Amino acid sequence: MPATPSTPATHTDPAGPADLVGCRNTTVIGAGVIGTSWAALFLAHGLHVTVTDPRPDAEEQVLAGLEGIVPTLAALGLPTGGLTDRLRFEPDLAAAVAAADLVQENGPERLGVKQEIWRTVEEAAPAHALFATSTSGVPATAIAEALEQPERLVVGHPFNPPHLVPLVEVVPGERTSPETVERACALYTALGKKPQVLRKEVPGFVANRLQSALFREAVHLVADGVVTEAELDAIVTDSIGMRWAVAGPFRTFHLGGGPGGLPHFLTHLGTQMAAGWPHLGRPVLDEPTVALLTRQAQDAFGGEPVAELAERRDRAQIALMNALGEDRDRGEAA
Amino acid sequence: MPATPSTPATHTDPAGPADLVGCRNTTVIGAGVIGTSWAALFLAHGLHVTVTDPRPDAEEQVLAGLEGIVPTLAALGLPTGGLTDRLRFEPDLAAAVAAADLVQENGPERLGVKQEIWRTVEEAAPAHALFATSTSGVPATAIAEALEQPERLVVGHPFNPPHLVPLVEVVPGERTSPETVERACALYTALGKKPQVLRKEVPGFVANRLQSALFREAVHLVADGVVTEAELDAIVTDSIGMRWAVAGPFRTFHLGGGPGGLPHFLTHLGTQMAAGWPHLGRPVLDEPTVALLTRQAQDAFGGEPVAELAERRDRAQIALMNALGEDRDRGEAA
Repeated sequence: MPATPSTPATHTDPAGPADLVGCRNTTVIGAGVIGTSWAALFLAHGLHVTVTDPRPDAEEQVLAGLEGIVPTLAALGLPTGGLTDRLRFEPDLAAAVAAADLVQENGPERLGVKQEIWRTVEEAAPAHALFATSTSGVPATAIAEALEQPERLVVGHPFNPPHLVPLVEVVPGERTSPETVERACALYTALGKKPQVLRKEVPGFVANRLQSALFREAVHLVADGVVTEAELDAIVTDSIGMRWAVAGPFRTFHLGGGPGGLPHFLTHLGTQMAAGWPHLGRPVLDEPTVALLTRQAQDAFGGEPVAELAERRDRAQIALMNALGEDRDRGEAA
Repeated sequence: MPATPSTPATHTDPAGPADLVGCRNTTVIGAGVIGTSWAALFLAHGLHVTVTDPRPDAEEQVLAGLEGIVPTLAALGLPTGGLTDRLRFEPDLAAAVAAADLVQENGPERLGVKQEIWRTVEEAAPAHALFATSTSGVPATAIAEALEQPERLVVGHPFNPPHLVPLVEVVPGERTSPETVERACALYTALGKKPQVLRKEVPGFVANRLQSALFREAVHLVADGVVTEAELDAIVTDSIGMRWAVAGPFRTFHLGGGPGGLPHFLTHLGTQMAAGWPHLGRPVLDEPTVALLTRQAQDAFGGEPVAELAERRDRAQIALMNALGEDRDRGEAA
């Protein structure tokens, strides 16, 4: 569980805060939603955090965000006392990374901007510092073309928000070293996350591609008038959603194949399913479609502020995680 | 929760078994996995069940299946005593439906066979009997072309297995009457299910189309060597799976859009996502792909019989349902 506050990899240094697999000082680049969430997670695991962002309200934004995150950290069983004692703000990027063991970057999703950021970090950070970018769309290979030591940079793409959802996609670039990948995985694991290393650098990585494929068909079905958004959501939570929380799609079809498992499924129902693939929807997010989806979203969810809905969802998420425990994908309850 | 053994719609008749929204006698056509699961659910709710199937081992098959389902019924909080006292077998279809209040058909997925079955049922069943087919692929409109009273037939497509998973897709044909739809929904609801009426009869209905769209991309990513089956499954359970168990895809993106909700999401990240749709994978389930998926399934899941894996998965499923309770899609814990 991400809730475990002290993994075997954690030990408390009597001279100061925790040291997590060789990491004590972290720098979070970017004071937005993802940066704030990483900062909260690092702080809750006893690390020092320096947040750097040129915007003048960075400190205000992060402190407000932290306040909203603290109840979730507590529900996850993480310590929440004195978090801000180990938090500082430094608008100057070079100064902010000067003592970093880990730099987690959450800058704008533009290659040029990321290259400039990482060039500065490479010059100013200690030689041992681990470089991770939260990017969901810019490959490490491309960013690292601007670096002297491309082997130090890896994608550590969280599923939002990182303080709650276990997945971190670790995506090495062509020149990322195995040691960098290993260190990133060890650190994310010590933070209670479930890192997954991809074997190939593909656009969108894995989780977002899968999500996008399902959402495409969802948009088609709503635009085609088969169901409303609220009806489609209920269908998902009452069937495939609850299934995939416990076992992924391959395991689910393995169990759906009877004693013959997935091989039997593939040669029987699988062929029939594949025959339908060319007939899945190909919707376009044009103006009328966006207008329809917007109208239905207002009907379905508009009665309450997003923040309150999200808070309730996250509480349910934690109840689910507690019920399932570590062994989600092995299909076991805690 | 499907676990509720006595809903307001249930009452015990002192003269005999329960009467569920006017239904006491059910006939289950087809002694396969789905038929057996429906039979178990009906029996656990106090109904009489007649199973009809021409195969000589129908009784043996259903009794063995029931034995496997009883622990799940018990875990769901349903009564499991004396189930078989209300179960009988009748190989002759006309005789089997002669006293039915509900006929739930799980025959072969071939139009001609289904039409023949339903013609016989229509002639032999009481005038008030509700006609539901579990088909996942044959439209009610097509089957009903063979009937005198097409208004009586509706699709009640469960997500397997119906005794556990809440969703039942209720899909009216062109000539299905509103009363039939209403009665089917009332009955499935009284059985603890979550019926969802579709507004249009589309191939694959909704849950299977969504599942198929995601699985298509999953096959692509594994065939392309980005991840293994086991890695992809872990990615899903640790991110979108646990998300969609609590809130469907539209609600999830509504909450991912910040204070502006889904409308903001659509005009920002949505456009970017849609730009990737044409680049999603278009795999073919050809021989080499099936061989690869089979090999990986054996590596990932081959160490244990499917039945044992399924049993563990179902226990985890019930733990999840108990943790989330009724309010899954409203994002609330029980």
